[in-house]
Amino acid sequence: MASCARGARIPHPFDPLEAGEIKVAVAVVREALGTVLFNAVALQEPRKADMVAWLGDRNGQPRPRRVADVVVIAPGGRVGEGLVDIDKGSLVGWEWKEGFQPIITVEELQAVEHIVRTDAAVIEQCEKSGISRDEMHKVYCDPWTIGVDERFGSTVRLQQALMYFRPGLDDCQYQYPLDFCPVYDAGQRRVVHIDVPEVRRPLRREPPLNYHPADVEVRGGYRTDLKPLEITQPEGVSFRLDGRELQWQNWRFHVGFGYREGIVLHDIAYNDGGTVRPIFYRLSLAEMVVPYGNPEHPHHRKHAFDLGEYGAGYLTNSLKAGCDCKGAIRYLDAAFPTRDGGVRTVANAICIHEEDAGLLFKHSDFRDDSAIATRARRLVVQHIFTAANYEYIVQWIFHQDGTIQPEIKLTGILNTYAINPDEDTHGWGTQVHPGVNAHNHQHLFCLRINPSVDGPRNTVVMVDAVPSDAPVGSAENPFGNAFGARRTVLATAGAAASDYAVSRTWDMCNRDRVHPYSGLPASYKLVSRDVPGLLPKPGSLVWKRAGFARHAVHVTKYRDDQLWPAGRHVPQTSGNTPVGLVDWIGDGSESVEDQDIVLWHTFGLNHFPSPEDFPIMPAESVTLLLRPRHFFTHNPVMDCPPSTSVTPSQAAAAAAAAAGMEKAD
Amino acid sequence: MASCARGARIPHPFDPLEAGEIKVAVAVVREALGTVLFNAVALQEPRKADMVAWLGDRNGQPRPRRVADVVVIAPGGRVGEGLVDIDKGSLVGWEWKEGFQPIITVEELQAVEHIVRTDAAVIEQCEKSGISRDEMHKVYCDPWTIGVDERFGSTVRLQQALMYFRPGLDDCQYQYPLDFCPVYDAGQRRVVHIDVPEVRRPLRREPPLNYHPADVEVRGGYRTDLKPLEITQPEGVSFRLDGRELQWQNWRFHVGFGYREGIVLHDIAYNDGGTVRPIFYRLSLAEMVVPYGNPEHPHHRKHAFDLGEYGAGYLTNSLKAGCDCKGAIRYLDAAFPTRDGGVRTVANAICIHEEDAGLLFKHSDFRDDSAIATRARRLVVQHIFTAANYEYIVQWIFHQDGTIQPEIKLTGILNTYAINPDEDTHGWGTQVHPGVNAHNHQHLFCLRINPSVDGPRNTVVMVDAVPSDAPVGSAENPFGNAFGARRTVLATAGAAASDYAVSRTWDMCNRDRVHPYSGLPASYKLVSRDVPGLLPKPGSLVWKRAGFARHAVHVTKYRDDQLWPAGRHVPQTSGNTPVGLVDWIGDGSESVEDQDIVLWHTFGLNHFPSPEDFPIMPAESVTLLLRPRHFFTHNPVMDCPPSTSVTPSQAAAAAAAAAGMEKAD
Repeated sequence: MASCARGARIPHPFDPLEAGEIKVAVAVVREALGTVLFNAVALQEPRKADMVAWLGDRNGQPRPRRVADVVVIAPGGRVGEGLVDIDKGSLVGWEWKEGFQPIITVEELQAVEHIVRTDAAVIEQCEKSGISRDEMHKVYCDPWTIGVDERFGSTVRLQQALMYFRPGLDDCQYQYPLDFCPVYDAGQRRVVHIDVPEVRRPLRREPPLNYHPADVEVRGGYRTDLKPLEITQPEGVSFRLDGRELQWQNWRFHVGFGYREGIVLHDIAYNDGGTVRPIFYRLSLAEMVVPYGNPEHPHHRKHAFDLGEYGAGYLTNSLKAGCDCKGAIRYLDAAFPTRDGGVRTVANAICIHEEDAGLLFKHSDFRDDSAIATRARRLVVQHIFTAANYEYIVQWIFHQDGTIQPEIKLTGILNTYAINPDEDTHGWGTQVHPGVNAHNHQHLFCLRINPSVDGPRNTVVMVDAVPSDAPVGSAENPFGNAFGARRTVLATAGAAASDYAVSRTWDMCNRDRVHPYSGLPASYKLVSRDVPGLLPKPGSLVWKRAGFARHAVHVTKYRDDQLWPAGRHVPQTSGNTPVGLVDWIGDGSESVEDQDIVLWHTFGLNHFPSPEDFPIMPAESVTLLLRPRHFFTHNPVMDCPPSTSVTPSQAAAAAAAAAGMEKAD
Repeated sequence: MASCARGARIPHPFDPLEAGEIKVAVAVVREALGTVLFNAVALQEPRKADMVAWLGDRNGQPRPRRVADVVVIAPGGRVGEGLVDIDKGSLVGWEWKEGFQPIITVEELQAVEHIVRTDAAVIEQCEKSGISRDEMHKVYCDPWTIGVDERFGSTVRLQQALMYFRPGLDDCQYQYPLDFCPVYDAGQRRVVHIDVPEVRRPLRREPPLNYHPADVEVRGGYRTDLKPLEITQPEGVSFRLDGRELQWQNWRFHVGFGYREGIVLHDIAYNDGGTVRPIFYRLSLAEMVVPYGNPEHPHHRKHAFDLGEYGAGYLTNSLKAGCDCKGAIRYLDAAFPTRDGGVRTVANAICIHEEDAGLLFKHSDFRDDSAIATRARRLVVQHIFTAANYEYIVQWIFHQDGTIQPEIKLTGILNTYAINPDEDTHGWGTQVHPGVNAHNHQHLFCLRINPSVDGPRNTVVMVDAVPSDAPVGSAENPFGNAFGARRTVLATAGAAASDYAVSRTWDMCNRDRVHPYSGLPASYKLVSRDVPGLLPKPGSLVWKRAGFARHAVHVTKYRDDQLWPAGRHVPQTSGNTPVGLVDWIGDGSESVEDQDIVLWHTFGLNHFPSPEDFPIMPAESVTLLLRPRHFFTHNPVMDCPPSTSVTPSQAAAAAAAAAGMEKAD
């Protein structure tokens, strides 16, 4: 039996599996099943009932056991999954799955390019594109899961190879897209098909436009007029990390990390004058989809679920101070299994730091010289992941006033396709550079919120700002200025599926906690304005697969393991069978009033590319707020030390003293 | 004849009037008209035709003359306005106006409180509210222009006095609103009417809740766990100020300041690889309105036009380093006339500083260890103005990539009204504290943009993200994923009045400058998501007076002096006669295609108050972007020095060297 090679510290039940724990799980599975490829070995999150009990009484209640959730691919491509009790070192459940493809790992991705280069049919297509056989080492591909292709089904593990060329090793391949698309079978490790367009678009050997120093030097060199700006924290950070439990400015939460979602925050609470009040049990970016808008075959397959198909954790960057962040920074590492059962550690997978955040509040009185000005600080918990061409900078920003602000900055490189001289994009993309067609796309992120606003019995209320129904000139609205908030309780999972509209917000409320002054329930308000909605039509392939993106907000009753809204295994799902969120909502009749609920919010942006985005994109942000409303008795940050404070009486005294001195002169 | 007491430096034609120039204008007017009260003495902006000629050839073309635009109130309340040629020291036009009330000055506001306190009828109402005669020194008021009140018209200059009480000098009066509202005649300097509600709401003497240090100490003191965060720029700022002309990171513009709009930016251009390309001729926040949603008389009069009625410049704060901003800061002062013809100088009215802005771009390649990460810097030009209770922090943020981001942070104190115990707010407000009803309101700002995207011939195109019309499964859209941008040219001023919709943006285009790659015109895109629309109904008093707020976007043909969309003189306008933008649009038939145009954008937020906002509001932001699209040949910031740069070949060489060293070991 495998023994647990754990460090001295007992992990917090929310902690990701440590390297030693991954090794235990691998050993247990190997002992039981022989040689398999490890797809995922990750924490199975503690059952909420057990966890809530333990969090409420850490000494009196049993500590939830450490359990690994393991997914493997056995010889022949058979997919298996089960649980390993880490403490006992034993398998506590196993299942072989049919017709599911688990997440694609970086190792699988890396294999494709090498095989593609030596494939005879690919070489033939390269020749047709104008690439000679001795240039095949200059051929690259970004292997994506195939998404789904009705011709191949989901029993064979497939990738599509988006093809590129690099004239030189350091050139940006996205400037040189090739027009054909090999389909790769990961089981057989070979190309099984090539999609070739009717109209060919041979490689265009335009001069390279790169962003690397040598190329910048050729074009005139770096600008020299940017003087240093230094951010220092001579006494260090203002937060405390105990293991992965963080305390900062009345906030308290646990920082987890998973291979799918990247950062996962748990047990988020706020110390309100000595009372630690729960707000969210769990917060994460749970899924995303990037539908591309070009209808030509096979571009419809370009609708990456970057979390479900590749994993924001698996794709995460190792971060370095001074470039990814500034100031005093604390890092957390991440440990993942390798396919062969080893452990891959990503150093500095998460960074945590504070930032000055401008004015927190200010007021001055026009009558006298009284004034108060208090600066704000914010805490940023960040990871960055690279999904082939795109970089996603994911920030969980905590504000002192109780606001949480998830913010995603998008940078990296556009996904590109070939375009012939004088070819029409038909408006489905933009020629951002000669020969480079960047297709229209959306980035739609799904935020999973398990609220616990003063406890788990919560309700979502949709709030619209509306004028009074009473006409202008009526007794109720004589001057026509009346307006207020229309509050719609989202009572069932079905009724809760709601779209974004201008000025609409959603409150997560605890109706048992009515504010003594306002009479409204303690709430956290979702204020989200970048909510473009899914542009692919209802009934489209993306619409079927990305059920979470059909509406801006869904609400379901909480159940353990209902974490990932596009399903547990996303690659090659068809959407014809309900999976994930669509399945959980079912007929929609389940009550989500005064329940332990999950709010799923899809937000993001439309990207109609422009030459400014090429060859590398200046970062673009998308953000939203979770704001306390009717939660605190009053402004919760009045005890933040002001930079300036002069009361009316102090101002008067100072003026009197100054007048006295003048008189004395 | 008055002589110009100007400094050695000849002012730039866009510079605000200097103190010496104000004195000249005052002297000229006095000489001509005798004793008058000065309401405004400000730069009349140079006629655009003259100015453009001079900007294009500063040595060859005549420098536009310095002209003061003067507004006075003569004895008997007569309003006069005209122009003074500063260089010649002569009046070049004068007019006496009937039925207009010019802006209310701080001096006028300050007078009201003292008069109200001694008014017998007010004292009587105070007694009814439970305030004794010997407490009258504890009675305060925020005098607002009356807005408009049909009972009094616009020939008498009126203010409404929103009444408050302070138990102690340092207590926050907004906790103690009084229920009646005196109407004050500024000409007679006396109270002419008191609006008294049917249901009385006597003063509630609840214990004070203050944000001042003494009060914070009583409630447990300041938090002590915030460690210093220092921002230093050892080599100083990266921008250059020549007078008020600023250069930073390829940007070039002039920083003006006016009594109405505060910061006014002119002649905004970007040095694109040696070619200075114009983008905007003028940018400002031109007007705003804050409609309150309580229909009860006389709250309908609460819809402050803070710029047109009080002036963002007149109300501006003097800023100090370390509290209002951090880092290396440059300041600009502002000079305004006093009523009696003196000069009031606001030191540090504008601050200019740089901020670190996170990652500008990043990419790493999953195949190798190549990576590039470049940090961003941004420039902030800021002023802060206090409109009675509210503070508006106005930031003009310039990004290196050509984006301009106006951002407004709202803080300060809620406008409040009295509420009886157990009184129902009817949803028109929130009891944020015992006895304190904060009414629903909106903050709607009007951004005035005079684009000059590669020259003055510009066109506005409304852009909507839309799915293909072709049904799912059709030949044109087999998988249903097709989507693109629907571009609607806004051809006439009438047709250009457009509302916000989800995903909608507006492009300011130069159709003579088609991008060589994308085929689309050089554009600046207005990306604005906080666009709640005017909630008071069409035909309401606010709707009539705030014509600019009826739609998210209006477009007019440029004309000199069409600067302020609610009219030149805003107090006491009825909206029954078209003024400002509504007047300029007229029948809407004028072409705004390929013209020198002005885009007027109304954005903002709804504020349904919450106890968290009391007694002082944590800052809330509203922002938008002006982004270059199809303007630059490619990413314009590749020459910003990276923090990290490793090319694939460098990574391979480093790996080979490391392997060699390992072998050598």
